[in-house]
Amino acid sequence: MLDPRRLCIHQVTLSLRLSTPEFVAALVRNRVPATALWRDKTREHGVAATAKLVADGGIALSGYCFGGLITSPDAGEAARARDEVRRALDEAAELGAPCLVFVAGGVDPRDKDIAAARSRALDGIAELLPHARSVGVKLALEPLHPMICASRSVLSTVGLANDWCDRLAADDIVGIAVDTYAVWWDPDVDREIARAGRRICSFHVSDWLPDTQDLRLDRGMMGDGVIDLPHLRRGVEAAGYDGYVEIEIFSQRNWWQRDADEVIAVIRDRVQGDV
Amino acid sequence: MLDPRRLCIHQVTLSLRLSTPEFVAALVRNRVPATALWRDKTREHGVAATAKLVADGGIALSGYCFGGLITSPDAGEAARARDEVRRALDEAAELGAPCLVFVAGGVDPRDKDIAAARSRALDGIAELLPHARSVGVKLALEPLHPMICASRSVLSTVGLANDWCDRLAADDIVGIAVDTYAVWWDPDVDREIARAGRRICSFHVSDWLPDTQDLRLDRGMMGDGVIDLPHLRRGVEAAGYDGYVEIEIFSQRNWWQRDADEVIAVIRDRVQGDV
Repeated sequence: MLDPRRLCIHQVTLSLRLSTPEFVAALVRNRVPATALWRDKTREHGVAATAKLVADGGIALSGYCFGGLITSPDAGEAARARDEVRRALDEAAELGAPCLVFVAGGVDPRDKDIAAARSRALDGIAELLPHARSVGVKLALEPLHPMICASRSVLSTVGLANDWCDRLAADDIVGIAVDTYAVWWDPDVDREIARAGRRICSFHVSDWLPDTQDLRLDRGMMGDGVIDLPHLRRGVEAAGYDGYVEIEIFSQRNWWQRDADEVIAVIRDRVQGDV
Repeated sequence: MLDPRRLCIHQVTLSLRLSTPEFVAALVRNRVPATALWRDKTREHGVAATAKLVADGGIALSGYCFGGLITSPDAGEAARARDEVRRALDEAAELGAPCLVFVAGGVDPRDKDIAAARSRALDGIAELLPHARSVGVKLALEPLHPMICASRSVLSTVGLANDWCDRLAADDIVGIAVDTYAVWWDPDVDREIARAGRRICSFHVSDWLPDTQDLRLDRGMMGDGVIDLPHLRRGVEAAGYDGYVEIEIFSQRNWWQRDADEVIAVIRDRVQGDV
């Protein structure tokens, strides 16, 4: 059973048809202590206004989703993408979010060179560190599932995130976001979570549905899939993580279709179990 | 450019609406030297009749697709699944196929235990070795993409296939099938292909489309995606592989809708390039 003070529900878990004020009101009404805000929605409502909303509601922030996509082989494009990450870091600081969830970027059809894309991502992160430090917001490197390697993230495993952190040698300002959905299949995940240790600064939870129908938007509610979630939670906690358990479910065909109060009630019910 | 004698087109690459005689006729008509037969289609036409067809057509077989799915947590189900693999091995022998492409099986919602599923897969393979040896057909362990880990295969990386081969210590009768589509994203793939060396007994080629829309049936034609195919081919060849380059494209929305002669012509054109 999860300590209810550690429950965090990401904005993207509830239907994005909700405005940010409607979303925050749903959290307050249901006594959800924390969230991670979604950048598009935050900018739509305004960063300062959103900061005030969550502060007034007494909602804590686990992080800000997301910044990144810096792997372009075109130097100008990549520089503009890094500037966009700097703006996202500024917004996270203004919101009071401790980290920016960082999504590396994919493989460009123009060069089809995944090794080069990984190299550009790592170099690009190194360039972003001074700005992250100056605003006091950690970059939470999030390995994403290999099925979105081409489109979203060449950072595909916790092992590679550890390798990058070793190279960056900046554990004060770079961490790792472990997402159960992205990493559960990895034969090395237990070892690499242990190796990550206190680098783990964010823990995202959802389940893998046996009949998954979409590469991004068909995540499952905890308990509806095949991931041994208690095992992964024990792993990150043994590594030293004691922060929020962050429910992040992209679900176009199911949960996004439902009422916010209902979704939150189901989440509360499921985290009573050992997830 | 590929030596045309090394070209192999898997049966599943052409529309499965073609009967096996129609499929073999298309290969003969287009002077394709080799194929890997698809088990359902072979059984539909009859194993002996199919063996005669390919022999009469002068078509070589690179392998037989597929057998496996032995990870059930129910002992009776798992035993029946292993018996089914033995039948598939017998059929491969009758056809004259040198290997059976082996797909491990997924994670059962009944136990949600991927480590146990992997352990059962490895133990099950060990039980199959005497039969494979007795009929002289190699088990070609095929790592499949992590996105089908739950439904089809807990063998998710070339590294894990190497670990299993180390444990089995049976390189005479167990090999590894490397599929570009399944492994291209893996940060360790170059190292693990080198480690596999002459264990590599099968090499399947297709491309990853940037706008992939399905977890299984939306593979791309070589050149239409983001995989550096020449790089992977050089890797397996440096490891010692000199067998067929096997075109295996599951493509419900595109290539399966097209005429067999057209698909073969496009493949011939693409392999003129450096894939």
